[in-house]
Amino acid sequence: MTQEKAFQDYYPDDLSHCYGCGSLNDYGHHLKTYWDGDETVSHFIPESFHTAIPGYVYGGLIASVIDCHGTGTAAAAAYKAEGREMDTLPPFRFVTASLRVDYLRPTPLGPPLELRGAIKEVKGRKVVVSITLSAAGQITAKGEVIAVQMPENFLTGK
Amino acid sequence: MTQEKAFQDYYPDDLSHCYGCGSLNDYGHHLKTYWDGDETVSHFIPESFHTAIPGYVYGGLIASVIDCHGTGTAAAAAYKAEGREMDTLPPFRFVTASLRVDYLRPTPLGPPLELRGAIKEVKGRKVVVSITLSAAGQITAKGEVIAVQMPENFLTGK
Repeated sequence: MTQEKAFQDYYPDDLSHCYGCGSLNDYGHHLKTYWDGDETVSHFIPESFHTAIPGYVYGGLIASVIDCHGTGTAAAAAYKAEGREMDTLPPFRFVTASLRVDYLRPTPLGPPLELRGAIKEVKGRKVVVSITLSAAGQITAKGEVIAVQMPENFLTGK
Repeated sequence: MTQEKAFQDYYPDDLSHCYGCGSLNDYGHHLKTYWDGDETVSHFIPESFHTAIPGYVYGGLIASVIDCHGTGTAAAAAYKAEGREMDTLPPFRFVTASLRVDYLRPTPLGPPLELRGAIKEVKGRKVVVSITLSAAGQITAKGEVIAVQMPENFLTGK
């Protein structure tokens, strides 16, 4: 089930300004997430200044891309659970209720980061996603995102 | 116990390149953390593009500043536990083993963010810090950072 468009490309324009993954944020990371079988995958290349200790990736960036990978995966999982394509209405958009990141070892700065998401739970408005982050073929961080479907008052501008 | 210099200003130059809090990172956030009694405090003003949904702060940025507030607090707590001033050698520098952020409500984009850290545990090379993040007087996120003293091979360039 490979798609040409990333999950984030299906977000409505008014919900596409996220610094981590919004296609309309001129300064942001533009994370893109896709299905790869039952898992989800994103690739991301940090900038040279996204450093913690010289030579290693900043932990806050790792948390950021895990976060957006998680909410993107949650949206895709919700469409899948309903048997709907991602270009059908109403749109699903999730926000993070809780984020956990375990930094297993330093992440080298340079190679592309690969994020892989596994859907642990889809229940009501909540989706739980487990995520690994790898660099140069080695898992360096693990994350869990508890995502909840965005309240409707966000969509109407409150 | 108020200090003019922030915790991060005591980091050695070769450990001052962190995107979140390194004074020598030209592109970074430059988070600055201080004692306020037994707690620690940082203030941070997000940029207009640090947005999640328009009008609200990006969760990855919230995770990032909680992370750096946590490692800075861990270093200060370690000096304090040894009864040492922060300008004495050898330097303490901590990295994050685990980060957890609970997003309680959306964080409005605009007002300064206030981070407050409480030291939960100092044990061997590990420090646990509980952190709240507030905007406009309301706590919008809570975090916990488990920080560990940096391995010596980081300091010697491996």
